[in-house]
Amino acid sequence: MSDPFVVVGGDAAGLSAASKYTRENPDSDVVVFEKGRWVSYAHCGTPYYVKGEVERLTDLLSLSPEEAAERGIDLRREHEVVAVDTDAETVTVEGGGERFEQPYGDLLVATGAHAITDPIDGYHRDMAFTMHGLDSAAAIRAALADPDEPAVDTSIEYVDAELVDHYAAIAPPERVAIVGGGYVGVEMAEAFRAHGLETHVFQRGPHLLSPFGDSVCERVADHLREQGVELHLNCSVEELAGGDRVEAVVHENGRVDVDLALVGIGVAPNSQLLADTPVELGESGAVAVDEYGRTNVENVYAAGDCAEDDHTVTGEPAWVPLGLTANRAGRAIGQTVAGDPEPVGDVAGTAVVKAFELEAGRVGIIDHDDARAAGFDPVTKTITAGSRSGYYPGNEPTTVSLTADRESGRVIGGSIVGKDRAAIRIDTLATALDSDLTVAELERLDLAYAPPFSPVWDPILVAAKVLRGELE
Amino acid sequence: MSDPFVVVGGDAAGLSAASKYTRENPDSDVVVFEKGRWVSYAHCGTPYYVKGEVERLTDLLSLSPEEAAERGIDLRREHEVVAVDTDAETVTVEGGGERFEQPYGDLLVATGAHAITDPIDGYHRDMAFTMHGLDSAAAIRAALADPDEPAVDTSIEYVDAELVDHYAAIAPPERVAIVGGGYVGVEMAEAFRAHGLETHVFQRGPHLLSPFGDSVCERVADHLREQGVELHLNCSVEELAGGDRVEAVVHENGRVDVDLALVGIGVAPNSQLLADTPVELGESGAVAVDEYGRTNVENVYAAGDCAEDDHTVTGEPAWVPLGLTANRAGRAIGQTVAGDPEPVGDVAGTAVVKAFELEAGRVGIIDHDDARAAGFDPVTKTITAGSRSGYYPGNEPTTVSLTADRESGRVIGGSIVGKDRAAIRIDTLATALDSDLTVAELERLDLAYAPPFSPVWDPILVAAKVLRGELE
Repeated sequence: MSDPFVVVGGDAAGLSAASKYTRENPDSDVVVFEKGRWVSYAHCGTPYYVKGEVERLTDLLSLSPEEAAERGIDLRREHEVVAVDTDAETVTVEGGGERFEQPYGDLLVATGAHAITDPIDGYHRDMAFTMHGLDSAAAIRAALADPDEPAVDTSIEYVDAELVDHYAAIAPPERVAIVGGGYVGVEMAEAFRAHGLETHVFQRGPHLLSPFGDSVCERVADHLREQGVELHLNCSVEELAGGDRVEAVVHENGRVDVDLALVGIGVAPNSQLLADTPVELGESGAVAVDEYGRTNVENVYAAGDCAEDDHTVTGEPAWVPLGLTANRAGRAIGQTVAGDPEPVGDVAGTAVVKAFELEAGRVGIIDHDDARAAGFDPVTKTITAGSRSGYYPGNEPTTVSLTADRESGRVIGGSIVGKDRAAIRIDTLATALDSDLTVAELERLDLAYAPPFSPVWDPILVAAKVLRGELE
Repeated sequence: MSDPFVVVGGDAAGLSAASKYTRENPDSDVVVFEKGRWVSYAHCGTPYYVKGEVERLTDLLSLSPEEAAERGIDLRREHEVVAVDTDAETVTVEGGGERFEQPYGDLLVATGAHAITDPIDGYHRDMAFTMHGLDSAAAIRAALADPDEPAVDTSIEYVDAELVDHYAAIAPPERVAIVGGGYVGVEMAEAFRAHGLETHVFQRGPHLLSPFGDSVCERVADHLREQGVELHLNCSVEELAGGDRVEAVVHENGRVDVDLALVGIGVAPNSQLLADTPVELGESGAVAVDEYGRTNVENVYAAGDCAEDDHTVTGEPAWVPLGLTANRAGRAIGQTVAGDPEPVGDVAGTAVVKAFELEAGRVGIIDHDDARAAGFDPVTKTITAGSRSGYYPGNEPTTVSLTADRESGRVIGGSIVGKDRAAIRIDTLATALDSDLTVAELERLDLAYAPPFSPVWDPILVAAKVLRGELE
């Protein structure tokens, strides 16, 4: 019997690959090693669990270990792969009190990413968190709840009861700091404000959600202020000060007393497992792969938050650690390993985020330095138009920014922000980018019109019209 | 001085053309003849005016006669063009008590469409309406209001006060019939139910909204029934019976007593003005034009609901009388006549409709007979998936149908229906169709994912995955 398909990491990419592989190839073996207790959970749902809109932690699981077993997947939780030997085609595993060598026929590295906390000093203090994984989510929700009314059910097998009990016993915070104004920061500001907490967001640079571009950032910042969030922009946090617990955020210009601090300043790929192997990493530090998710070493694949993908616009490798990319690449690799090669697909950098009542989306190359680095001569125009016919109730100003390459006229990026169905409209631009549409072609798209959903000229068409005027 | 640019018809296409022309060419003359009193109004907004969501009829005007004059447009309302002489390059106009010949340098025929009432007998009876134009909308709203509480302000210059006063004096109906289950029928069912009326919809064939395909039709029919609408499917109406006023709808299997009847069984292009000219009509009866909106006769253009356009999917002429098409073609022709040729753009048949709480969208070629006639071998798959992550509040089942050509794998049509941001998602498919994407390419699009807006696998991606499985 041949060696099994071995998957390192039991989250979106890993379990998508294992599921697809067993479906295509039910008689072959697939083993998934997951170092934690949780598998296949919706990371993007954790802020809404903390907020209280999602009731149970287990609602966030997309595939339970039992379901994985039913699919024929040999899933080993609390088993960590600590080394890879690509010559011997084995991995070294620690788990269940043992350390052993596991031979592989094919290997998928789907180790994900981790939240970074450097260079913030004092992260070791209690009541300092990152938002990465269900244990963090459970701990924060426990910390926000009154000790008399525990919010987290510790009877669920996967829950770290000791951790939850620790935070459940602490009096809930009144003032919280969020260090970092990216997705996590913005989503968690909404969650903390829903609990009535004084909420401070610290952003080192001038813009929240900087990958979304200036026009989105400005509207989101204004809206967060309207929602009672205190923004500290252009403000580098130096330390989470205090004793055992965090008591204050110390920044370059002063300090703000808080009872809880959440650090959301970014993530980094978990590629260190491959450090001593011939598997090549890309410039981003994530694993370099080809269009089928193959690394430079035979029979070794990588997918999800630890791997790069090709960018739709530039054609160059990019590291965009998001959920669809992970699921799709995992699934494609499962099919490829099963013998029916399937491309993992490009990434367009499509992202959407909810910020209280605002919705924002972005896609492609928005930053002009990034665009120039990719060989484009970027031109951007921003318009604000109605989401519906002006006379129809619920019409909301919708801001669209479009970026194109001056010479070719090709659309290379864009963003949308507004309160009414704004985010999902980014899919139109994602599709346009995938097809290399020019601004003129975008302007002539036959987009939907009906008073409740869009004006005659959809905001995207208005933006295309204005940008085209600038290009000519 | 050269002869002016003459435009026949002062609605979307005509005034878009005139506006663009004067902007590009401020020193040249443009004359617009409009046979009615109203110009440039939002036809698609009329059901919401009748419903009461739009308060004033004038809210539906997108350009007032005064604004047109400010733009330098010589707008002549209540002036009807009754003949065109393409040899002499003149039109014959009746208006202001005169009949005169107007020479043209370029001519745009933008005469729109009219609601058809054949073969329904008895349409001449009072309280029988079509929904075409602001006079109809005013009349119906007046008819629905209590005589003591008039709903239509007859002091507005454009309003036909005599017509409105007539209907305002009639006791409001309790039972209404809608003959025809297309857009107008579905939107007006919502309007009538909002006034608390017993509402009957008669549809000759088995499906409401038949251009949207079976999956949309079924969900819309179920939802209309939930909303208290009585559907009579597979039911041909023969007569609007009664004396002076409509008293009943007589259909092939019986009769239903009603106090008001709305006939919405379709529209036909107003191309009869060109009947005695060498200008060619297409198979649809609308004016045949090239990619710049030019007819076969030099200097004669046509645009809007009276003209055909090329279809994105088939490349063949199609007649799709909708608002964006009219505005866009008018604008392009204005620019072309001004000396800077601009294509009018193709139509993809993109359409969206609100049916109470449901939203539906459609695009491209859905009907299999139509697809085969265009040379395709159609395959359709329908799926229902969540609009948001399953655990996130507000997640709604969203039904997507996709149609592809079996041999090429190209996506040729699709529909979407659901309650949560469903309609606007059709723009993604419209963009995909414009770019000739295959099902496999559609499946690999990097569409947006965030729990409040879309699951990891957007319903469109799920549909593509399932259809691709069928194609392979």
